[in-house]
Amino acid sequence: MERCRMVFSGSGGQGVITATIILAEAAVLYENLNAVQSQSYGAEARGGATRSDVIISDSMIDFPKVIQPNVLVCLTQDAYNKFYQIIRPGGLLVTDTRYVNTQKKVDAQQRELPMFQSVMDKIGKPIVFNICMLGAVIEMVDLIAPEAIMKVLQNRIPPDFLDINRQALDLGRELGMEFKK
Amino acid sequence: MERCRMVFSGSGGQGVITATIILAEAAVLYENLNAVQSQSYGAEARGGATRSDVIISDSMIDFPKVIQPNVLVCLTQDAYNKFYQIIRPGGLLVTDTRYVNTQKKVDAQQRELPMFQSVMDKIGKPIVFNICMLGAVIEMVDLIAPEAIMKVLQNRIPPDFLDINRQALDLGRELGMEFKK
Repeated sequence: MERCRMVFSGSGGQGVITATIILAEAAVLYENLNAVQSQSYGAEARGGATRSDVIISDSMIDFPKVIQPNVLVCLTQDAYNKFYQIIRPGGLLVTDTRYVNTQKKVDAQQRELPMFQSVMDKIGKPIVFNICMLGAVIEMVDLIAPEAIMKVLQNRIPPDFLDINRQALDLGRELGMEFKK
Repeated sequence: MERCRMVFSGSGGQGVITATIILAEAAVLYENLNAVQSQSYGAEARGGATRSDVIISDSMIDFPKVIQPNVLVCLTQDAYNKFYQIIRPGGLLVTDTRYVNTQKKVDAQQRELPMFQSVMDKIGKPIVFNICMLGAVIEMVDLIAPEAIMKVLQNRIPPDFLDINRQALDLGRELGMEFKK
């Protein structure tokens, strides 16, 4: 397989770090792949945009930081403005329609998805926004099965919350389905 | 300052990843330092021991993976058996007395602390074991103020849970105080 390098970005509290950790765990525990997941914080992190990196591969991964992601997700305008240039040519750039106005020219497939709005309309709980995003990503990229994500969630969250997480994951998959590669 | 490289290890569910993320955020947001935090998962991760790395520095950090930590925390026997050799000579090796029987010879300051037992005796909630560990580490290493950790926790957890987290942090600090450098 080709190594998949992803960067999820947004603001603190949107759960982008949690989403990458869930994805990495699903890859390793249930898809028999290797994964490295990292956060790099510096002076710029104090400004606002959070970034979380994950690399997934069937071979060993030496250097954990993503230089040019195949998949870049931006959940805020700040994150988009700061990171849009790093997308790998021909890569997949996913933004949320509610939060991001995409004015930049990039050599990538741009997918503007109403993830936040759909979560609010259908589920009403902003806390699962990140899981909806994860659903959209795994549907478009087809690397990790939704069942693998659900197994990780079952180990991490109280049973009462599993149902809205499943709903959010499915909602994201529906949004991504149109753009399945 | 000297760059501080730490590895927290244990089993899934003990919260070692969360603890490193909290520490990294505290360093960056409230201590004006830089931090890189990462998890590297491979075939061995499927065996059991989880490892989470964090590097804290006042200068730029290029390579995010810790090779030889100054501080190594092991919260299970598996984690100890797997990682004890990586401690930097003269470093600090922290283990939990309930979970780890330290039989290996290492060139390090070994601190066996009754963290889990103290949390169960004084607070009764195993979920804050990782915060107690963090309290012990910041007391012994003196790099991040407890108030910085509390500020991160205030942003991350519901107000109802803040009090037991504060208790766990203070409990850890008491256990670490004896070994303050």
